[in-house]
Amino acid sequence: MHLDQATPEQLRKLETALAEEYQTILQAGLNLDLTRGKPSGEQLDLSNALDGILQGKYQDTNGTDLRNYGGIDGIPEAKQLFSSMIGMKPEEVMIGGNSSLTLMYFTAQTCLHQGCSDADSAWSKESTTKFLAPVPGYDRHFSVCEHLGIELIPVGMTEEGPDMDQVEALVQQDANIKGIWCVPRFSNPTGCVYSDEVVRRIAKLANIAGSNFRVFWDNAYAVHVLEENAPELANLMDYCREEGTEHSIYHFGSTSKITFAGAGVAFVGSSTGNLAVLKKHMGFTSIGPDKINQLRHARFLKDIDNLKQHMDEHASIMKPRFEAVIQQLEAELADTGMGSWTNPKGGYFISFDSRPGLAKSIIALAAEAGVKLTPAGATFPYGDDPEDKNIRLAPTYPSLDEISKAMNVFTTCVKLASVRQKLANS
Amino acid sequence: MHLDQATPEQLRKLETALAEEYQTILQAGLNLDLTRGKPSGEQLDLSNALDGILQGKYQDTNGTDLRNYGGIDGIPEAKQLFSSMIGMKPEEVMIGGNSSLTLMYFTAQTCLHQGCSDADSAWSKESTTKFLAPVPGYDRHFSVCEHLGIELIPVGMTEEGPDMDQVEALVQQDANIKGIWCVPRFSNPTGCVYSDEVVRRIAKLANIAGSNFRVFWDNAYAVHVLEENAPELANLMDYCREEGTEHSIYHFGSTSKITFAGAGVAFVGSSTGNLAVLKKHMGFTSIGPDKINQLRHARFLKDIDNLKQHMDEHASIMKPRFEAVIQQLEAELADTGMGSWTNPKGGYFISFDSRPGLAKSIIALAAEAGVKLTPAGATFPYGDDPEDKNIRLAPTYPSLDEISKAMNVFTTCVKLASVRQKLANS
Repeated sequence: MHLDQATPEQLRKLETALAEEYQTILQAGLNLDLTRGKPSGEQLDLSNALDGILQGKYQDTNGTDLRNYGGIDGIPEAKQLFSSMIGMKPEEVMIGGNSSLTLMYFTAQTCLHQGCSDADSAWSKESTTKFLAPVPGYDRHFSVCEHLGIELIPVGMTEEGPDMDQVEALVQQDANIKGIWCVPRFSNPTGCVYSDEVVRRIAKLANIAGSNFRVFWDNAYAVHVLEENAPELANLMDYCREEGTEHSIYHFGSTSKITFAGAGVAFVGSSTGNLAVLKKHMGFTSIGPDKINQLRHARFLKDIDNLKQHMDEHASIMKPRFEAVIQQLEAELADTGMGSWTNPKGGYFISFDSRPGLAKSIIALAAEAGVKLTPAGATFPYGDDPEDKNIRLAPTYPSLDEISKAMNVFTTCVKLASVRQKLANS
Repeated sequence: MHLDQATPEQLRKLETALAEEYQTILQAGLNLDLTRGKPSGEQLDLSNALDGILQGKYQDTNGTDLRNYGGIDGIPEAKQLFSSMIGMKPEEVMIGGNSSLTLMYFTAQTCLHQGCSDADSAWSKESTTKFLAPVPGYDRHFSVCEHLGIELIPVGMTEEGPDMDQVEALVQQDANIKGIWCVPRFSNPTGCVYSDEVVRRIAKLANIAGSNFRVFWDNAYAVHVLEENAPELANLMDYCREEGTEHSIYHFGSTSKITFAGAGVAFVGSSTGNLAVLKKHMGFTSIGPDKINQLRHARFLKDIDNLKQHMDEHASIMKPRFEAVIQQLEAELADTGMGSWTNPKGGYFISFDSRPGLAKSIIALAAEAGVKLTPAGATFPYGDDPEDKNIRLAPTYPSLDEISKAMNVFTTCVKLASVRQKLANS
């Protein structure tokens, strides 16, 4: 039954039934977690061969002993592998430590204080620095900006990526907008893949926004497909070369959700000029990244074909979990008018939109029942979801049984909150 | 023969002989390097067991799967081990990635922009921020400050550590001095160990300099002894507890010269209040350090006794190299008045002082003869050695044979430059 077609009498009956159901759940004393995009233990096991893979051989293809100091930009075989993963040239990629977030923070900080090209290009030279934040988006992107004092302007997401009419209009009218956050394939949290046209328009942005504008292209789920025919992402750098805007992008990636989430390898691709600037400044903060871990990864993942096979193994573990969530949403909430959700072909999240004004209550109800959900508003800058409706579901870490239990709680909470709201407003 | 006792005739003869010797060296076409404090391959081999040590066991003592995300402050067993190495409590230590320089940069940056306690404590609130730089010192400390816009004030080094009369007078008269760089055991480059009295006076500094003053205690060579009876370093934190200045120190360390120089584990010890501030801000830049590498290190190094045995193996490789340098300096330059040098009981360097005004020429002569030395002035802020006399010798990386050849070149260059200077001035 669709909520808007229910009579007040039906609503009251439903509320009573749901409240009872909720009481039963409360008594079960659950302790479940759907908050973070963490790989499961089974997924982590796929990469256990990293340990012991070096077999006493510590030299890279140049003959450098990687156990020693040096090499701020990473080892040749890692550049080869990860550049092929994101469709750039090896010399356009720099390999870092275990965290792409660290590379993003460092890059934003460098652009802000030291300048993305020379000192005159420092964003801090102007009164304010602003970034566009397609919403819903990734909370840790927003917090990088908040920590650096960069103002965030939300822009809408469509099924094809950011609303580019809005994006172009904003950068045209406000020269203080210096960047945009993008998770272009299997966006966090909606799971959408940016369309070719959106990627093309992003490549042109610097021609409107100016030479110090930068796209922070966090391709965190570049190879994280759930099924064979998942949509491909256009190559942003190729389009940038056509537009003469190669300097306008930083393409981030990592193996956090390919090997070990806490002990992988992160990288950034950009024009060689941009990389030279980053390396120069990074040299003040470090003698170099952990090259031994880079070597482990190059030896273990080998090449892009082998890497994709490895990702298929991840998919076979993840897919049943995503399906469990979707099935339960379909079974309990389809055609009820109580919410809508995405059904992504890759990535780590499912994005759920409740009726406006209910995300906080649903999350609170679930928390009371022992099911932890990402905090309401987390997918918006400053934690402010203006319609209070977006909830990010992360199904990878819990077991299938836990997901089933957690989703039962979730859909019950959605229904209870929706019915109560409807009753209050009728 | 002492240079100052030579007659002009003797000097001219000596110059001719040395110039010939130098010509012979030139023709040998050497390519040797005494610049950087890098462990040798033999030393790196001591830690090859790190690879494969995990044996499928990825949980820390709390049962956490370390392959996954999280844990900004490091794993319990690493805290236990490294706190015992530097004489602090486990909860007073935070374990990072592979680079203590990164921790130092991050700490200085946080104190500068966000504040070492709260926002009001940010050094950037005042017009200028200054740091004391005991000289000769470590170039990468100085470049951290230069990159962050912190002004460096050189202070002299004695055989007991920084000239504390000078240090105390400076912090008393200038409230903009917010920190001091120290390498307290086997100082880079002099190799001196700070005396108990100096450590005690450093513990008291914050009581003169104010609550936002910080000692950057880079204990890079904490356990890097060359012989059994090497002088011990007093425990700064113990003294700070007595003086009520626990908040005034950041105690840095790493395994860079214990295991793999490029792939070790770094850490910082401080008051729990200071660490809470650092962790809060670090959380914006990273989800957490590489805990798997921390686990490898905890499993490999085990405990402080085992770690010290491991360092004895390093010493047995390093000591002959140090001895080779010292023997050649003694044999060629003792009682000549052409230079003085330190004879450290640990660390990575020997510090050589030529006659004033000659460091640059000696380094240039050696470079022409194929022996690379640390650039003149590198041990001083802004690369400016006011007396142009300090040269840092790093004997760990080359082989004994290479050291012998390089030192032959070095002493010839010292003699040639000294004699020529004397001739020019007579």
